[in-house]
Amino acid sequence: MVAELISVGTEILLGNIVNTNAAYLAEKCALLGLSLYYQNSVGDNEERMEETIRRALGRSDVVILTGGLGPTKDDLTKEVTAKVFGKKLYEDLHTKERIMDFFQKNHSGHKITENNWKQALVPEGAKVVENANGTAPGLIITGEEGTEYAGKMAILIPGPPNECIPMFDRQIAPYLGKLQPDGIYSCMVKVCSIGESRAETMVADLMDAQSNPTLAPYAKTGEVHFRVTAKAKDEKTAQELMRPLVDELLRRFGDHVYTTKEEVTLEQAVVQLLKEKKMTVTTAESCTGGLLSGRIINVPGASEVLNEAHVTYSNEAKEKILGVPHGILKAHGAVSRETAEAMARGACQATGADASIAVTGIAGPDGGTEEKPVGLVYIGCCVRGNTVVEKYQFTGNREKNREYAVARGLILLREALLHA
Amino acid sequence: MVAELISVGTEILLGNIVNTNAAYLAEKCALLGLSLYYQNSVGDNEERMEETIRRALGRSDVVILTGGLGPTKDDLTKEVTAKVFGKKLYEDLHTKERIMDFFQKNHSGHKITENNWKQALVPEGAKVVENANGTAPGLIITGEEGTEYAGKMAILIPGPPNECIPMFDRQIAPYLGKLQPDGIYSCMVKVCSIGESRAETMVADLMDAQSNPTLAPYAKTGEVHFRVTAKAKDEKTAQELMRPLVDELLRRFGDHVYTTKEEVTLEQAVVQLLKEKKMTVTTAESCTGGLLSGRIINVPGASEVLNEAHVTYSNEAKEKILGVPHGILKAHGAVSRETAEAMARGACQATGADASIAVTGIAGPDGGTEEKPVGLVYIGCCVRGNTVVEKYQFTGNREKNREYAVARGLILLREALLHA
Repeated sequence: MVAELISVGTEILLGNIVNTNAAYLAEKCALLGLSLYYQNSVGDNEERMEETIRRALGRSDVVILTGGLGPTKDDLTKEVTAKVFGKKLYEDLHTKERIMDFFQKNHSGHKITENNWKQALVPEGAKVVENANGTAPGLIITGEEGTEYAGKMAILIPGPPNECIPMFDRQIAPYLGKLQPDGIYSCMVKVCSIGESRAETMVADLMDAQSNPTLAPYAKTGEVHFRVTAKAKDEKTAQELMRPLVDELLRRFGDHVYTTKEEVTLEQAVVQLLKEKKMTVTTAESCTGGLLSGRIINVPGASEVLNEAHVTYSNEAKEKILGVPHGILKAHGAVSRETAEAMARGACQATGADASIAVTGIAGPDGGTEEKPVGLVYIGCCVRGNTVVEKYQFTGNREKNREYAVARGLILLREALLHA
Repeated sequence: MVAELISVGTEILLGNIVNTNAAYLAEKCALLGLSLYYQNSVGDNEERMEETIRRALGRSDVVILTGGLGPTKDDLTKEVTAKVFGKKLYEDLHTKERIMDFFQKNHSGHKITENNWKQALVPEGAKVVENANGTAPGLIITGEEGTEYAGKMAILIPGPPNECIPMFDRQIAPYLGKLQPDGIYSCMVKVCSIGESRAETMVADLMDAQSNPTLAPYAKTGEVHFRVTAKAKDEKTAQELMRPLVDELLRRFGDHVYTTKEEVTLEQAVVQLLKEKKMTVTTAESCTGGLLSGRIINVPGASEVLNEAHVTYSNEAKEKILGVPHGILKAHGAVSRETAEAMARGACQATGADASIAVTGIAGPDGGTEEKPVGLVYIGCCVRGNTVVEKYQFTGNREKNREYAVARGLILLREALLHA
């Protein structure tokens, strides 16, 4: 089946917001085995929206529209789609009740304004999809036999990501999955500490040979994710199809694979490893300024492995909090192998943590010299008294360099823990 | 003039990457006074790309294509666009030299592979736009008199944001600006600590009345940015047109305006305020885990105002590092007004900073109770001994709640500094 995305909204068209829904839905469509050839964005304009919907229905089987389902008169997606399919709108009592419930639960005291009832109007014959996080329902509209778009389907989803994504995952994706002749199953092999091009070279033969299962690489900061996808009549058969390829990836990437689970992030894998080894961790950050501890604490339950962490931006703080010797700072400077090592050791000593990561570098745009250019970062990692320091030369802007440093810090800690 | 965006690349189509270029270019097009009615994404497929380019040229004056200018045989944007305009490709010697220079400077030791010379091919009559950060040049192709797309223009820009954005800002935007009969000038009034809907209500009459200058709101986390845009023959006239509206915004929002400069962020404004008051700041973070200090340190030169900061995730760390009395934690819990206050005071005492922000809350997904639900966050702010604590109830997921808390922390600090 061929799918197509239409993002509706002047705020997307004018660049007011980044269209993250499109990337999310596109990835999920690929995962469902749908072919996606076009994505479109159009504003809240009846004529241009109608033209875009008609063209999409003409060339694709399933058209997924996001946005434009709100209560105001600018919101036209439902009205225009119903018109294209030649369907009238009627008031859906169940949806009306749901809107009333939603308001009582979330905005008690607020009066429901008249225009909210617009959201209870649904096209005749449409399947209504409940919205757990907002008032606008999702809608699935199918063209009837004998009409222009017979058998074609339009799926309308609210635009806010916190409504769009749960609705798609919980209700639309299973619905679309059932329409496919075969099920599509996938798993993810997430690899770190190998660059994208090297990782892809290492599996070039597997990429060339692919048919079922398929193999697709996704580059992330400091990571490469390989998605293995199989079409099969049931999950067991799919798993059997995928197993040899997954095993081969595990064999080739070895310890660099940090998870084979879709939902597990690098920081989750690191926190898990710390839990398994019954170790605590702390961080001592200079140029990353707390982003590394912030990422670790993004893992629910991180409190089991992290009690405290420190941002030691000034030299005085490095001396006072981490006990970095004044002589080291004076002789080698704050951005040096020696300082990174002393910070990592000192962080463990000061906090009693079993492990530490210390980051010191020149994020830019200023502060670089010929000898120590912008992007130079030293990361120290201490695990039960053993310290390693790595030197990195990043080439991004201030924000990117700090993001790279955070990823590298997590990877270095993971490696040290594996060998501890 | 009507502009249209086409993002080329299978990685966008499959949701491998989020299309941030589109939002950036769309905002900049609006700023240049171009009307943008459609955005499209299409893969590296000749037929579908040609169809998309032809339709765009049929309905828009300027078509901006990003991506598909790389050296591999998958990269087709230039070839297909040249075909649509009926133009041949020839080798541009200047571009060839530039590619050679780029490789010598950035990849010394790497051999230039044969396919890189593909990037030196340009359509006849095209304007070549230099790329400061990569090998693929930008191209501006105009349809000749008597041909199908006479007077229409295609602008080809490399896809990587670090090439696309500087090229657009430095070269394409000024070029497009000159084609407009009037210049477009704008300024930004950035407002914080007022919700989006309230802020918009406060200027509803100004929004209704707008023609030249225009007023457009952009909602950000904890902030609303109002862009004032004027069309005029020169900057001085534009400034005169914008002045009354900007003054009116300043009058209505008062202290809530933290800058009227496009490039200034909230954290920069806060760091600037600290510098003006000759104060230093520290942070004591629990649920945000370092993201707040990380955001402050994102400001180049933040070292003047921040020496050290602490993540006190466990109760023990709150006691040990910040001196939060055991009795307070026991009586009120870690997520309480009393703890936030003690953390903020203790952070100043422990570090000698003039000001502090302390954050303690329940980011979720676990840890919430009926009395203290997920999303409950207390933020304390101490400036020269005066402490205020605010209570917030956020309704996002863990990541969003932490982002809100960081923004609120900065806003609370700004307010306290203004009144200090």
